Amino acid sequence: MNEEENLKVGNIDFSKLNVSHIINSMKATAFNARRLAYAAELYREMVTGNYFIFLTLAGAMIPAGMRNIVAGMMEKGFISCLVTTGANVVHEIIDALGIGHEIGKDYADDVKLAGENKNRIYDVFVDQHAFEEVENFLSPIISQLDGNLSTPELMREVGKRIKDKNSFLRVAYEKEIPVFSPTLHDSIFGLHLSIYRKKTFYLDFLKDINQILDLCFQKIPLGVVIVGGGVPKNFTLQAMLLAEGFDAAIQITTDSPQWGGLSGATLSEAKSWCKLKEEAKEVTVYCDATIALPFLYAYLLDSL
Amino acid sequence: MNEEENLKVGNIDFSKLNVSHIINSMKATAFNARRLAYAAELYREMVTGNYFIFLTLAGAMIPAGMRNIVAGMMEKGFISCLVTTGANVVHEIIDALGIGHEIGKDYADDVKLAGENKNRIYDVFVDQHAFEEVENFLSPIISQLDGNLSTPELMREVGKRIKDKNSFLRVAYEKEIPVFSPTLHDSIFGLHLSIYRKKTFYLDFLKDINQILDLCFQKIPLGVVIVGGGVPKNFTLQAMLLAEGFDAAIQITTDSPQWGGLSGATLSEAKSWCKLKEEAKEVTVYCDATIALPFLYAYLLDSL
Amino acid sequence: MNEEENLKVGNIDFSKLNVSHIINSMKATAFNARRLAYAAELYREMVTGNYFIFLTLAGAMIPAGMRNIVAGMMEKGFISCLVTTGANVVHEIIDALGIGHEIGKDYADDVKLAGENKNRIYDVFVDQHAFEEVENFLSPIISQLDGNLSTPELMREVGKRIKDKNSFLRVAYEKEIPVFSPTLHDSIFGLHLSIYRKKTFYLDFLKDINQILDLCFQKIPLGVVIVGGGVPKNFTLQAMLLAEGFDAAIQITTDSPQWGGLSGATLSEAKSWCKLKEEAKEVTVYCDATIALPFLYAYLLDSL
Amino acid sequence: MNEEENLKVGNIDFSKLNVSHIINSMKATAFNARRLAYAAELYREMVTGNYFIFLTLAGAMIPAGMRNIVAGMMEKGFISCLVTTGANVVHEIIDALGIGHEIGKDYADDVKLAGENKNRIYDVFVDQHAFEEVENFLSPIISQLDGNLSTPELMREVGKRIKDKNSFLRVAYEKEIPVFSPTLHDSIFGLHLSIYRKKTFYLDFLKDINQILDLCFQKIPLGVVIVGGGVPKNFTLQAMLLAEGFDAAIQITTDSPQWGGLSGATLSEAKSWCKLKEEAKEVTVYCDATIALPFLYAYLLDSL
Repeated sequence: MNEEENLKVGNIDFSKLNVSHIINSMKATAFNARRLAYAAELYREMVTGNYFIFLTLAGAMIPAGMRNIVAGMMEKGFISCLVTTGANVVHEIIDALGIGHEIGKDYADDVKLAGENKNRIYDVFVDQHAFEEVENFLSPIISQLDGNLSTPELMREVGKRIKDKNSFLRVAYEKEIPVFSPTLHDSIFGLHLSIYRKKTFYLDFLKDINQILDLCFQKIPLGVVIVGGGVPKNFTLQAMLLAEGFDAAIQITTDSPQWGGLSGATLSEAKSWCKLKEEAKEVTVYCDATIALPFLYAYLLDSL
Repeated sequence: MNEEENLKVGNIDFSKLNVSHIINSMKATAFNARRLAYAAELYREMVTGNYFIFLTLAGAMIPAGMRNIVAGMMEKGFISCLVTTGANVVHEIIDALGIGHEIGKDYADDVKLAGENKNRIYDVFVDQHAFEEVENFLSPIISQLDGNLSTPELMREVGKRIKDKNSFLRVAYEKEIPVFSPTLHDSIFGLHLSIYRKKTFYLDFLKDINQILDLCFQKIPLGVVIVGGGVPKNFTLQAMLLAEGFDAAIQITTDSPQWGGLSGATLSEAKSWCKLKEEAKEVTVYCDATIALPFLYAYLLDSL
Repeated sequence: MNEEENLKVGNIDFSKLNVSHIINSMKATAFNARRLAYAAELYREMVTGNYFIFLTLAGAMIPAGMRNIVAGMMEKGFISCLVTTGANVVHEIIDALGIGHEIGKDYADDVKLAGENKNRIYDVFVDQHAFEEVENFLSPIISQLDGNLSTPELMREVGKRIKDKNSFLRVAYEKEIPVFSPTLHDSIFGLHLSIYRKKTFYLDFLKDINQILDLCFQKIPLGVVIVGGGVPKNFTLQAMLLAEGFDAAIQITTDSPQWGGLSGATLSEAKSWCKLKEEAKEVTVYCDATIALPFLYAYLLDSL
Repeated sequence: MNEEENLKVGNIDFSKLNVSHIINSMKATAFNARRLAYAAELYREMVTGNYFIFLTLAGAMIPAGMRNIVAGMMEKGFISCLVTTGANVVHEIIDALGIGHEIGKDYADDVKLAGENKNRIYDVFVDQHAFEEVENFLSPIISQLDGNLSTPELMREVGKRIKDKNSFLRVAYEKEIPVFSPTLHDSIFGLHLSIYRKKTFYLDFLKDINQILDLCFQKIPLGVVIVGGGVPKNFTLQAMLLAEGFDAAIQITTDSPQWGGLSGATLSEAKSWCKLKEEAKEVTVYCDATIALPFLYAYLLDSL
């Protein structure tokens, strides 16, 4: 983000205690509070500027309770396209089926948990039984699939069969928002696909590439909000190697540049690849997304 | 923090957009959002339970614009004692003198900045001139000191000469809140002390130990809020080696346990040293304090 | 790792200065030096115990110069199966074609680099031209592919056309070591596949699942060495949801558990999912793999 | 570090397996392996160039088994001055008295440990009894101190009473190497000082400042090796605010710049403060020091 010259660090104004007021006030601070304020402002600019906005979502965001934010962002027009992991899709289905995730502990005895058929995701527990329910739900869908489908096409097949109105897969289906899942095979959904598919059905990720390229070639302002790196980040950014680059980008990550990996890479680095336009506004917030994302969402709701 | 059994991960409720409502809602999420919610609740318990609350403050929090939060916490009764670094004291004086800190960039040319007499603290710039003003302010104070003073005693001498009502040193003086600075010598204040002191003046940190021990021996509930590790954390916790341990503790840090250092050490580890009581409630939030601290403060203002 | 009771922390013995001696000596230290020593010992146990060893390799390891280690591990029998990212495959081809990667700087001007057609990977530069050479090499291979191939099958097609004897794709082909690349589409190879493929060719990741399951169902000791998390880690571990779990596991990562993501998840957490057997030995080394991996490899060479 | 233009990333040469050969080879890699190689080379330059070398040592390095490295560095002339924490001094005394530290576990039950009088430092246990022995050793030394002493003066009083030839306090005494401990009061040594001191004894940290300034004003090449940040880093660097800046600097840290604190601050940032000379060579290695420090030491032993 560009800053004007000679501005002073100031005080956060606590005379109002709504989220958007506090975040606005953080523009005059430093470190990641300032970055959060810049990200909020840039996100608002994207929405009011009618950007086509990709949200890339890695990390266990659905088990962590972020699903209504994703669905809400779709409802409100804050996302035009979602790119997420197979795991987030599976856990969305677990929630959509009403099974849900248990509030657990991060200092659990994992062997004991295994004995109780509970799987741990840091401080969240998932009952083994949940995956059976997912299998019961998915297997009839999978077994009738034929030909080659991209993941957005497959996600529509799933979304239209979900009844829970809070499900982002359902909302995406209704709003015709494409949901890419370039690591769908890297999840329990993938295991079920390998078991129940017809031999003439192919999950065709190369078709995903063609479809995301079509979106990247649109002659409208294009923005990306990157939550947590991974394949969703890379898959979305790499499409721009063939197109002209994003016009604006926000990144929320807990990874660091100095390890050399893509998840922690700066958005400046992405400019050397022309994945972002030279003049693109960009800001990275180094923060757990379970904190930054809800506050950003509340900011958008409050200020738009 | 203890959690009840079989609670489900839920949705954050965005029907109200004030900070305390959002943070309360985060109790049903996971990772550091849940930790933030637990920390907020525990902090409120400390305040309503009339705990004597130590705030330990490391990291460049004052250059980052957190000074009115510290002063406000003192005004509102959210802190009973402050333990901070010499650097935060020096930068507080820079602000109290009206000089302030400039909003800078983290990707600056440092050699060029040096040529412009600007010192960088990540994305904040400080004019070299500021330290001359600090010297002009401090040297007459220092040159008249005699005998042996603890840092809380010295901080009172400074605080009573500050006119800025937003200064935490001024507020601490007025409210009789002790301010320990066990690394005062590790700052430009320390350099000035070494230059301007009388030969018969001693900065007596061993007296600091006696004085913090007196506070730790009080027969009232004792809590600690740890921002950022370092000597402020260790100095405060180690006093409990001779006393009975804290009754409650909150830690905000970006460090991690696996490097083995004290700044990243868990509060559970502190129980092995009896620095916390066995049954003490404790929660660590892994987050940049420039984000977590303002939201916690807004939560307290909003919910108390 | 289990430790015996009451052992004392000791001194590293520098009377010999070869890598294996120093690492052995680190068993009596702490933090990640001790973890490195345990990992080295466990890796040697896997090799001498004739384990079938999966290496999962995420992060920009090939641009960082780790390719001869991967190839060497295959030659020496330290790896039985490789699971890596599409990016590492692409950069391997760049090296195998003799183009290579330039030693760069992490504090570069990225817009200027873009103008010079140089892409930055932290402190490594890749000439844009390299990707044209990759395209020239891959396009004739791709255009003759038909039917549905798994990535190990496709990697064999590539490996057998590489002449560079230092290429891990070549060595894997010769040694009949399966190379899975569950994110092959998430790379420039993927872009080329989407452009040059016949309409009747499918990259069939569900076949990958079947093939890795076959490897996981082998009735021999199964070990996994995880470098850097990501899809390679998850894809390999999740196969064990249907099988009996790994007998031993080593993880090298710079990620941390407290962010809740899979890349930073402990190997203990994996036991709650039965991805590791209850009694499996496991050790995580928190370290940049560019440091840990060469030293582990040197240790194996030296001690076997 | 400056790099020459257009050098290619290469292979580590494993034809010899001694540490210095492997590290030398890492110059042609990337990320922190390359940084480690640059640090090793720069350290060797400092030693062969007869630099006066400050080692600043934070973190629990002595409990982690690094003491013979510190002592060895003093013996071999790799350190001219040590700046370390009070905690490292205390744990050095525990080792020097033959009590030592127990190899423990990081996933211990801390309340149970407290019941067994064992204190945990990540994966190291210290018996409570050790601190009684330290008290028995220190109390007669302390009770005869009078006047005002700097910490290097006090460390000499301690060092000359230690019999263990592997003790860095003993070696420093014999070799007349100053040992600063600007956080000595922030340790159990400090607690004992507060209990046993004469009322006319002062631990005079302002004298420390004068003494480190004298060292920084020497007209010889001055280098600094920073292990782990904290007060040792800041106290040593800040002395250069009054002098001309270091000629060379190496930093080993697990902290990151983006949190804004001094421990993670880049050495480039230190140039904006003139703590390093404009043209000073500098390199940061992001790595647990328990791994990087032994390998650096072995490199120096091997290559000098």
